[in-house]
Amino acid sequence: MNNDLKITYPGSERVYIGGKLHPKIKVSMRRVTQMPTVTIKDGERHESENPSIYIYDTSGAYGDQSVEVDLERGLPPLRREWIEERRGQDAHNVGQMYYAKRGIITPEMEYVAIRENMNCKELGIESHITPEFVCREVAEGRAVIPANVNHPEAEPMIIGRSFLTKINANIGSSATTSSIDEEVEKAIWSCKWGADTIMDLSTGANIHETREWILRNSPVPIGTVPIYEAMERVAGKAEDLTWEIYRDVLIEQCEQGVDYFTIHCGIRLKNVMLAADRLTGIVSRGGSIISKWCQTHQKESFLYEHFDDICDIAARYDVALSLGDGLRPGSIYDANDRAQFAELDTMGELVERAWAKNVQVFIEGPGHVPMHKIRENMERQVEKCHNAPFYTLGPLVTDIAPGYDHITSAIGAAQIGWYGTAMLCYVTPKEHLALPNKEDVREGVVAFKLAAHAADLAKQHPGAMVRDNAMSKARYEFRWKDQFNLSLDPERALEYYKTSNNVGGRYCTMCGPNFCAMRISHTLCEE
Amino acid sequence: MNNDLKITYPGSERVYIGGKLHPKIKVSMRRVTQMPTVTIKDGERHESENPSIYIYDTSGAYGDQSVEVDLERGLPPLRREWIEERRGQDAHNVGQMYYAKRGIITPEMEYVAIRENMNCKELGIESHITPEFVCREVAEGRAVIPANVNHPEAEPMIIGRSFLTKINANIGSSATTSSIDEEVEKAIWSCKWGADTIMDLSTGANIHETREWILRNSPVPIGTVPIYEAMERVAGKAEDLTWEIYRDVLIEQCEQGVDYFTIHCGIRLKNVMLAADRLTGIVSRGGSIISKWCQTHQKESFLYEHFDDICDIAARYDVALSLGDGLRPGSIYDANDRAQFAELDTMGELVERAWAKNVQVFIEGPGHVPMHKIRENMERQVEKCHNAPFYTLGPLVTDIAPGYDHITSAIGAAQIGWYGTAMLCYVTPKEHLALPNKEDVREGVVAFKLAAHAADLAKQHPGAMVRDNAMSKARYEFRWKDQFNLSLDPERALEYYKTSNNVGGRYCTMCGPNFCAMRISHTLCEE
Repeated sequence: MNNDLKITYPGSERVYIGGKLHPKIKVSMRRVTQMPTVTIKDGERHESENPSIYIYDTSGAYGDQSVEVDLERGLPPLRREWIEERRGQDAHNVGQMYYAKRGIITPEMEYVAIRENMNCKELGIESHITPEFVCREVAEGRAVIPANVNHPEAEPMIIGRSFLTKINANIGSSATTSSIDEEVEKAIWSCKWGADTIMDLSTGANIHETREWILRNSPVPIGTVPIYEAMERVAGKAEDLTWEIYRDVLIEQCEQGVDYFTIHCGIRLKNVMLAADRLTGIVSRGGSIISKWCQTHQKESFLYEHFDDICDIAARYDVALSLGDGLRPGSIYDANDRAQFAELDTMGELVERAWAKNVQVFIEGPGHVPMHKIRENMERQVEKCHNAPFYTLGPLVTDIAPGYDHITSAIGAAQIGWYGTAMLCYVTPKEHLALPNKEDVREGVVAFKLAAHAADLAKQHPGAMVRDNAMSKARYEFRWKDQFNLSLDPERALEYYKTSNNVGGRYCTMCGPNFCAMRISHTLCEE
Repeated sequence: MNNDLKITYPGSERVYIGGKLHPKIKVSMRRVTQMPTVTIKDGERHESENPSIYIYDTSGAYGDQSVEVDLERGLPPLRREWIEERRGQDAHNVGQMYYAKRGIITPEMEYVAIRENMNCKELGIESHITPEFVCREVAEGRAVIPANVNHPEAEPMIIGRSFLTKINANIGSSATTSSIDEEVEKAIWSCKWGADTIMDLSTGANIHETREWILRNSPVPIGTVPIYEAMERVAGKAEDLTWEIYRDVLIEQCEQGVDYFTIHCGIRLKNVMLAADRLTGIVSRGGSIISKWCQTHQKESFLYEHFDDICDIAARYDVALSLGDGLRPGSIYDANDRAQFAELDTMGELVERAWAKNVQVFIEGPGHVPMHKIRENMERQVEKCHNAPFYTLGPLVTDIAPGYDHITSAIGAAQIGWYGTAMLCYVTPKEHLALPNKEDVREGVVAFKLAAHAADLAKQHPGAMVRDNAMSKARYEFRWKDQFNLSLDPERALEYYKTSNNVGGRYCTMCGPNFCAMRISHTLCEE
């Protein structure tokens, strides 16, 4: 295992902000220091300071140069003490929703409130996000803090439409490719570029061990699709699955520390055949497995039948449930069809059953959807699922661009994020073609970070524009290094710039020295 | 000069469709032949045919393997005969709008009507796009066919909201980099990937010669920004520009065959200072030059003052005018501000003056705009500019992703295209950083092709979904080669696929053989 995995960002330092209600919490953030603005007036040089910019930081201990990281030992268990304290006070429940409903603000809630408000206090921007607000949103199911008590290594984060739009990166080995090392490396790499959660979609051998390595070394919540492991236990025969096998997998994964499970419990026997007249049938792996099971046994699926049992297990560990859209459309043609919406109706029923057991829940969404049909997805989800957060895969707005599906899906993701989707599952350039390598993961994460940020701007999230404004001011003042440092991918920005420039010039090769609009624009203001 | 520039697409052949009103026209298209669908039932193999799919083809003679291309000689002058015939009949005017107002359907109009209707006739899809419809749209200024009489090499295409969304690729040398060879190669390369027009934004030396090479070898219309060449003639001193210098440049470029000019005639003296309180001032090169000129001389610009003279020149050659948005916002902060909208109002006045002289005209738009402010741009443009087509640069929906601005802008472009923008100016990954190389041009063109196509799907353009549906059916049936052949970038799709697959498998490494949702889904339908 490669232990040299420290993460650095240029011009940046790790800072921690303390809590008020919970003085022991230290919320990690990245602070970018800017150069001053230099002007020459009457031959004299004047400098005016530019403020430091705070950036939401998902790199955990990897991004703190003072902490030694050892993959064999795992990350420091940030939340262990908080969890143990709560257990000491109230053995009855350990879940965020349980406390939220009682108006108790947990350290996790205060942590995310601070984390969401980057730059607000420093720049005097008003924000609706207080610990009390977080508590209410969690109590009413409008937001989720996925935080298994057995994953104390993860830093708290929140998924909900009133908060920053989050992104998830999928990693995981399949039967034919990739090793544990590679997957752990991809997990850390995803955090470097800004993934807010990671789903480990491993199949094949070593599924348990791969997950263990990822969990112990991940500073962000981890999601899984437990049916994949259950399938391994029945040698890939969907019809041999039973509730007992599945339950054992669930409990094992809860014990390991998985923070949220995708459960394809929205597929009803009566709805399976709704997908029969589709162009691309069922494209969700879990969905196809459950549909197959229902059809073979001519019974409701054990996921639907045992949903309350699943909730009871989840509640014990505070694992969140992500109701999987097994019938999501896999093509533009199939978007917004009966099968998809029938499943959404079922998910709406189940949301309330989860909440009754204090289980946090969010809803997965499509898929492939042309732009004019995206809004309907969001509006129906809100209506049918009682404001539980929405978590979509893209959606991809056309089918004809394999090799560029990080872009087709970023287009849909930005839009649906603006409409209120709380978390966007990334898509890499290799979607539909092959498993992503490290560079593909970077492309996918950054494409979705920018889509999520575009959504935050459009939602007018407090403070979201601060970074854009700083970037633009740096651009106008030819502070190139600040531009790189403030960008989502400083390494790439600098690399591209260097292809034809010397850092520090008051123009770039796009226009050349005589035609720089910004330079000319400056002379206008100076006169 | 490298003459080995033939363009091939896998599984494809060039076909020509003849006209009815004008039997001499041959509209070029690409036809992709698909494999049959193979099913095994009761041990027997059944085949059913899949239709050929027609694809809008911008590769001109380069894509026709039977035509020899010689860069020194230039492309065959497709439209020469049509133009000469018209001149013989009516020396008075040579312009598409002139004929359209008289209800005369030119060969160009029939050509674009056929070109826009790919797959419609073959698959029985109804389309509103007839030669008569094209003629009306051009007559009323809602669509533009940019077609300088001195650029007979270009294949006719149409820009208007009722038609397929078009994309433009910018190329051009600057003072510091790139040669003529490279720029001609980029022009042809842009056509390969699907650019509908090309803007030659060259500055520096060799500006005239570079343009000549591009024009003679370009199968798509060419646009320029004449002020750049005028600036060369005054050694880069904006204040030394005069109408006479500019006029001479215009006439020279008209003679050469430029199909449309960006003219920054919307900047009024009274509006120059509206940009003073901006975060990023003026970011349009032309806009900054004209603003500087206005401020220095304290006069209305010669472009505004001589707009009628400009129209008279353009009308003689049927050059279209693209009213440049010199005050477009260069940052999220500056979006939709007074300066921007004041210029739009001025452009609205000028549109009607252009139409009075039978000059085709479209309007350039931003720029940097957060998603929630995009729609206002489109709605205002339609209202103020009397339905003249809109042509936008992106817009970029965030400022913080240099190195990925082809994506930030494709997000905005897809949306504004859906709202009705007729042409989208591409942005490459090097935007804000450096001049694009060939690979950047490919990335930018494909990103914008997919954004434009997503807009066409959302607008429900007749036949737009045919290609998506064919792709999705091929996907569901594991016809991998058809997927590659139907994709926007077959080379990349195949290359990515090969990183971990053997072509022909009934699964891919994304899921592995045991977990392929589509394969399981097939077994559902078979039972």
